[in-house]
Amino acid sequence: MNDFNLSDIVALALREDVGPGDLTTRSIIPGDLAGRASLKARRFMVLSGLAAARETMRQADPRIIFTPLAADGDRLGPGAEVARLEGPAASILSAERVCLNFLMRLSGVATLTARFVEAVGRAPAAVVDTRKTTPGLRFLEKAAVRHGGGRNHRFALYDGLLIKDNHIAAVGSLARAVELARAAAPHTLKIEVEVDTLDQLAEALAAGAEVVLLDNMSPEELRRAVALTEAFYAPEPRRTRLEASGGVTLETIGAVAETGVDMISVGAVTHSAPAADLGLDWE
Amino acid sequence: MNDFNLSDIVALALREDVGPGDLTTRSIIPGDLAGRASLKARRFMVLSGLAAARETMRQADPRIIFTPLAADGDRLGPGAEVARLEGPAASILSAERVCLNFLMRLSGVATLTARFVEAVGRAPAAVVDTRKTTPGLRFLEKAAVRHGGGRNHRFALYDGLLIKDNHIAAVGSLARAVELARAAAPHTLKIEVEVDTLDQLAEALAAGAEVVLLDNMSPEELRRAVALTEAFYAPEPRRTRLEASGGVTLETIGAVAETGVDMISVGAVTHSAPAADLGLDWE
Amino acid sequence: MNDFNLSDIVALALREDVGPGDLTTRSIIPGDLAGRASLKARRFMVLSGLAAARETMRQADPRIIFTPLAADGDRLGPGAEVARLEGPAASILSAERVCLNFLMRLSGVATLTARFVEAVGRAPAAVVDTRKTTPGLRFLEKAAVRHGGGRNHRFALYDGLLIKDNHIAAVGSLARAVELARAAAPHTLKIEVEVDTLDQLAEALAAGAEVVLLDNMSPEELRRAVALTEAFYAPEPRRTRLEASGGVTLETIGAVAETGVDMISVGAVTHSAPAADLGLDWE
Amino acid sequence: MNDFNLSDIVALALREDVGPGDLTTRSIIPGDLAGRASLKARRFMVLSGLAAARETMRQADPRIIFTPLAADGDRLGPGAEVARLEGPAASILSAERVCLNFLMRLSGVATLTARFVEAVGRAPAAVVDTRKTTPGLRFLEKAAVRHGGGRNHRFALYDGLLIKDNHIAAVGSLARAVELARAAAPHTLKIEVEVDTLDQLAEALAAGAEVVLLDNMSPEELRRAVALTEAFYAPEPRRTRLEASGGVTLETIGAVAETGVDMISVGAVTHSAPAADLGLDWE
Amino acid sequence: MNDFNLSDIVALALREDVGPGDLTTRSIIPGDLAGRASLKARRFMVLSGLAAARETMRQADPRIIFTPLAADGDRLGPGAEVARLEGPAASILSAERVCLNFLMRLSGVATLTARFVEAVGRAPAAVVDTRKTTPGLRFLEKAAVRHGGGRNHRFALYDGLLIKDNHIAAVGSLARAVELARAAAPHTLKIEVEVDTLDQLAEALAAGAEVVLLDNMSPEELRRAVALTEAFYAPEPRRTRLEASGGVTLETIGAVAETGVDMISVGAVTHSAPAADLGLDWE
Amino acid sequence: MNDFNLSDIVALALREDVGPGDLTTRSIIPGDLAGRASLKARRFMVLSGLAAARETMRQADPRIIFTPLAADGDRLGPGAEVARLEGPAASILSAERVCLNFLMRLSGVATLTARFVEAVGRAPAAVVDTRKTTPGLRFLEKAAVRHGGGRNHRFALYDGLLIKDNHIAAVGSLARAVELARAAAPHTLKIEVEVDTLDQLAEALAAGAEVVLLDNMSPEELRRAVALTEAFYAPEPRRTRLEASGGVTLETIGAVAETGVDMISVGAVTHSAPAADLGLDWE
Repeated sequence: MNDFNLSDIVALALREDVGPGDLTTRSIIPGDLAGRASLKARRFMVLSGLAAARETMRQADPRIIFTPLAADGDRLGPGAEVARLEGPAASILSAERVCLNFLMRLSGVATLTARFVEAVGRAPAAVVDTRKTTPGLRFLEKAAVRHGGGRNHRFALYDGLLIKDNHIAAVGSLARAVELARAAAPHTLKIEVEVDTLDQLAEALAAGAEVVLLDNMSPEELRRAVALTEAFYAPEPRRTRLEASGGVTLETIGAVAETGVDMISVGAVTHSAPAADLGLDWE
Repeated sequence: MNDFNLSDIVALALREDVGPGDLTTRSIIPGDLAGRASLKARRFMVLSGLAAARETMRQADPRIIFTPLAADGDRLGPGAEVARLEGPAASILSAERVCLNFLMRLSGVATLTARFVEAVGRAPAAVVDTRKTTPGLRFLEKAAVRHGGGRNHRFALYDGLLIKDNHIAAVGSLARAVELARAAAPHTLKIEVEVDTLDQLAEALAAGAEVVLLDNMSPEELRRAVALTEAFYAPEPRRTRLEASGGVTLETIGAVAETGVDMISVGAVTHSAPAADLGLDWE
Repeated sequence: MNDFNLSDIVALALREDVGPGDLTTRSIIPGDLAGRASLKARRFMVLSGLAAARETMRQADPRIIFTPLAADGDRLGPGAEVARLEGPAASILSAERVCLNFLMRLSGVATLTARFVEAVGRAPAAVVDTRKTTPGLRFLEKAAVRHGGGRNHRFALYDGLLIKDNHIAAVGSLARAVELARAAAPHTLKIEVEVDTLDQLAEALAAGAEVVLLDNMSPEELRRAVALTEAFYAPEPRRTRLEASGGVTLETIGAVAETGVDMISVGAVTHSAPAADLGLDWE
Repeated sequence: MNDFNLSDIVALALREDVGPGDLTTRSIIPGDLAGRASLKARRFMVLSGLAAARETMRQADPRIIFTPLAADGDRLGPGAEVARLEGPAASILSAERVCLNFLMRLSGVATLTARFVEAVGRAPAAVVDTRKTTPGLRFLEKAAVRHGGGRNHRFALYDGLLIKDNHIAAVGSLARAVELARAAAPHTLKIEVEVDTLDQLAEALAAGAEVVLLDNMSPEELRRAVALTEAFYAPEPRRTRLEASGGVTLETIGAVAETGVDMISVGAVTHSAPAADLGLDWE
Repeated sequence: MNDFNLSDIVALALREDVGPGDLTTRSIIPGDLAGRASLKARRFMVLSGLAAARETMRQADPRIIFTPLAADGDRLGPGAEVARLEGPAASILSAERVCLNFLMRLSGVATLTARFVEAVGRAPAAVVDTRKTTPGLRFLEKAAVRHGGGRNHRFALYDGLLIKDNHIAAVGSLARAVELARAAAPHTLKIEVEVDTLDQLAEALAAGAEVVLLDNMSPEELRRAVALTEAFYAPEPRRTRLEASGGVTLETIGAVAETGVDMISVGAVTHSAPAADLGLDWE
Repeated sequence: MNDFNLSDIVALALREDVGPGDLTTRSIIPGDLAGRASLKARRFMVLSGLAAARETMRQADPRIIFTPLAADGDRLGPGAEVARLEGPAASILSAERVCLNFLMRLSGVATLTARFVEAVGRAPAAVVDTRKTTPGLRFLEKAAVRHGGGRNHRFALYDGLLIKDNHIAAVGSLARAVELARAAAPHTLKIEVEVDTLDQLAEALAAGAEVVLLDNMSPEELRRAVALTEAFYAPEPRRTRLEASGGVTLETIGAVAETGVDMISVGAVTHSAPAADLGLDWE
């Protein structure tokens, strides 16, 4: 299946960087000069962005042969080959930067996600992303999170229900907000409610929330939230899933995961991932 | 002057996040409910992205009144107000995330740039950006660099000449590459050549390069490069500008600046800036 | 909140119908002639499409004043006024057809949906739509279904999980398919499984499907499916929701609703709704 | 010749239905699973939309081989094969609905047109369409009318002149309106005038209208209109063509055709055609 | 009525010329500096392009007040004011060139058309344009022809029938080509046939062509063509209109017009019009 | 390297001319008729636009085989073959006009440029273009200037600095404007200043302008400007480049070139080039 968004964002990136033409290359490189080059990792990384890299070369010049030598999600050490490029040297030179910009950013997201996943350790909690993504790159960054071993939260405002304090304030009570959402939204969606306190959690459970986001709670509070939820359902297993959220770091995620929550959402994996280091080596 | 690119990237971001509709808000928030809220810095930052924030709200709902209380380039402490929003609560809620995503990323770039500029200290070297920007956001990130006190390198491949090793290899010599570029490119552009060694620098000076990029040189090598260039022009002041580039960090930039180069280009300011921390507080 | 899709489909429709210009009007109508007209229902209908009608006039000429006199979802008899238009006669004439085309189609969908809802009678089953919509108009037709008293199913392939026979065949068993979907998809989505037989229904319940689509079953089979599901959960109330689907008509929906299913999906409300009858009367 | 509009509307439809991805298929179907399937008619129909079906599959995945087994305009019985698909199962599954939505709507239009053409019987009157088409689909629906044996009226406002009562009212007389249109419009277009009465018809003939649209006239009035026109030209054959229009149904079109008019325009063929019934069968 | 094409081509032109920003103006002109300027004719011209000029300024900055002081079609002498601009100086400076580029090209077309119209003198022949227009500007250039006193031929391939030699060759005879066109094309269009000889003209008349294009004929041949056509219809007035075409210049058009043809099409008015001379004077 | 702008402007041109379909060809030409044709020069020209011609045919129908027989920049006499086309006759017929419109306009620009270059004679001055290009075609027309032997000035406002009288007026002095530009703009760009007098030239040299545009000066004044600049740098060779501009014609350019300026910019090569004469001959 083609990815329509991919084709558009790649076109935008090439237009932005190449636009009316690569002056240096056009002035110097003979049009018929053939070239071969390798995309390589320069440091450890979890790879993501291969489809964008390939699409960049395809749009730049359909004559470039792009041979992937690794797959998204692969863990690569320094010097590992990501892909080989073969074709008109001028075209490869002009598209090199855009190609690398995609790989560096997306592998950066995958790599940071993998570090969070690792820091969770053996606890069963999943690392999930947020909507704090780069404008225009959401679908690519969400895929990078999957490549890094994380899981996706809702994609956007149109495919999930997340009732926050302002929604509740607007209609007077958490219960009323849940009722309105249940009445109006597609039956294929679960209802998630964000809560700050255990009292609110109790309200959310009573209202039948299928997921509860526990916002900015300490590990101690989270533990109590888990206990309260289990008590609510006992002796049945609990059916409401619990998501911890808010300022979680590589240092704190282990303790958060220990509390028994099902998911931990981490904005940093998309909004603050440093770029992975890749380069293009010519033969 | 309107910024045409801005309007497109904002539309893309809203479409990506809101698309066919904000299900939660549509289910719960009454359409005629009015709201007031403030965009606030949560930690220290150099602000950037105000135009994108405003355009986001304008596209989301022209009835939202957006009153800026700070300007791009301002240094803000925790709690500082960036802007006030007044209008339909449902519209503000639906556009909040996109608005913050722009501000967090761009202020992140401006803030990191400012830290690099500060680390340069009293040396006259300018911090300049690179083409290692986020696909689709180049013009916004380049502006953020300016807001942080940095300067812009060429915008893209079409508005500057930078002759690299592959260009030189393709035609046999640095001198020939400079000659071809001078013959073909607009007379309004300077010619910049990337060199790895002092020998290449000497070649570039002889060829009349107007700017030389000194790639991955140690402070000691950079110092020698400056001296060599001055000797080339003596007794006249040197006319070729020198740019240091390659893996410069907050820790190393001070020493690099001391060498006497004119500019230091830093990819990290755009490719690895952590997000600034901002939020929306409702009244 | 603006509706970005609306603005695009209206632009497409106007471009399609007016394109380089309305030759008749340009040849004959003086540019400064003012006009007033009313959009009116010609027969009974449930109204839908007001936003598209207004946007059509706004794009055609911002000077046209569009005053709605009814709301989407209103039941209108012959002659009822939908909106008044005031402004340059040439512009209103040129945009009239596109404006009516939106209202006729969307009110047609709302009106047919309302007839299905009515035919359900007092049973608690909801009428829901499908993905059998007109290319380009999905979000408008889904809104029209709501205006007619129906409810929306998932919007598209990206915001809901519906496991069909081909998905099951590809991985060998229904249980495996559910397991894969649960492992990979966002936790905010319920899992729906399509079944043809009661045996498959039992499998789906065992696999923990949160919604089951009962495909092409007779009322008698549906009744048994409801009983089987209740038995599965007894003595607790059943938690799996049941959706009847497949060739439901105005004649058969009453009997289907009586079986106790929660939802009845009807493709005809979007794919075979006859146009509602509206016209523009000049004053 | 490629059809540019086709490529755009197909892209819009796929984006609308698949957007950031088919969650179910992505979770369950292995990427390398091959599949074969047949598009089949489920009931009698006149086929239309083959190019859109093929383009949908091409855009979804260029590796899908689409082999048409019927042609637009063919009359198909239940079970008749329309086309075979062979390629990645995941891609075919994800694009199936959009492909069918085009075929169902367009074959619906062709089939209803064919019923109107049949109902005309042996009279020489042509069934022609109107501008009452679905926004965004005009060119496809106009082609479907041709596939059903109908003929096209003007495509839009820019390629034909049709003077209506409001145009006449604006300049005071039918004769003046015709004169203005003749003076300003390209000489390649005929002038058509809409009339409600025989008096107006006489005026239109005197003004030299090349086509007259007889609006909402009974068969008896239409017969008199034909006679009056023949008398106007006698003893020459009449040169003004006559078009009957307004609320014509399958029940009434036979009688209308008997009156001797040249064309009968029918809005219902595009605005109220029920969907044709097609499905995809996997092998 | 808005002109959708106008808005797009203006956006394209501004993006092409301003793109990521006007470096000179951004570096130098204070953002709050107000300015006033006049668009003025520098030599004699027939004005065209006012809407494009205004739209350019509106898109550049909605705060610019654009006050037209002349109308499309006006004959202006050197120094005549076309419009006044008032608003942010930086915005006016940045948009000046695009604004002038539209006016210079379109007034150039109008002015050259007016010279051809004048050269026709008192003969009743109309000067008509062709499809030899600048890619992307057809609708603007066709309007410019009208402003210059010319008339439009068909706009494009979709709104007129013009049977040429290759169409005839493909089906064997002129009569057959006319018959096919009449059978398939909308009844709102006349059929025009291109002929090279009087024999072909006779064939075209016999086939009922409503317009005949006389290609590359000398005035003497044209005169005979008119006579032959009149003889064909005598004693009735001739009903087939005659268009002379092919290499007509300002020097030859007078003689062509004398021959009695109805229209003379001139490609040069759009493909070879020298730019009109306009400038912007600051106050 | 693909040219993204090319693909868009070609799509726009085809949409404009073919849009919903070529009625004549669709009515008459059998879909399976194959054809062969040659694009030929009808008079002397310097060729430009081959890529646009090829892209037009590619977009019209990928089955058309386009074989170039000449290259951009070639000087062609009457009858010279530019390219051969082979493929579906209907597709070639429908795309012929757009293809020729590109070639005629762009070869027109190249041809006129070549005449200016020739008129310069043996003087070393380069003929350069301006921003007075056709909206939407800048990149194609700038390439055509190169094909004609001219050189490009800056492409747009974003890739060059040109300080004009209004910039100077806004900040009080030429020196201040240069200083601001140098401080704010990328270090890869030269600074060009437009001057009207020798006094201003002296100021510009003192301010370190790297290029000076001498506006509307007579050959005598230009000669003095060259002398003054040489005196400024003596005994070194002068480093500021001088550009003559303003109303230069084929008659005057020789004398201008004799003055010793480096470049002569000529708006006419893009804004007033008459179309080159090409046609399509069928075999």
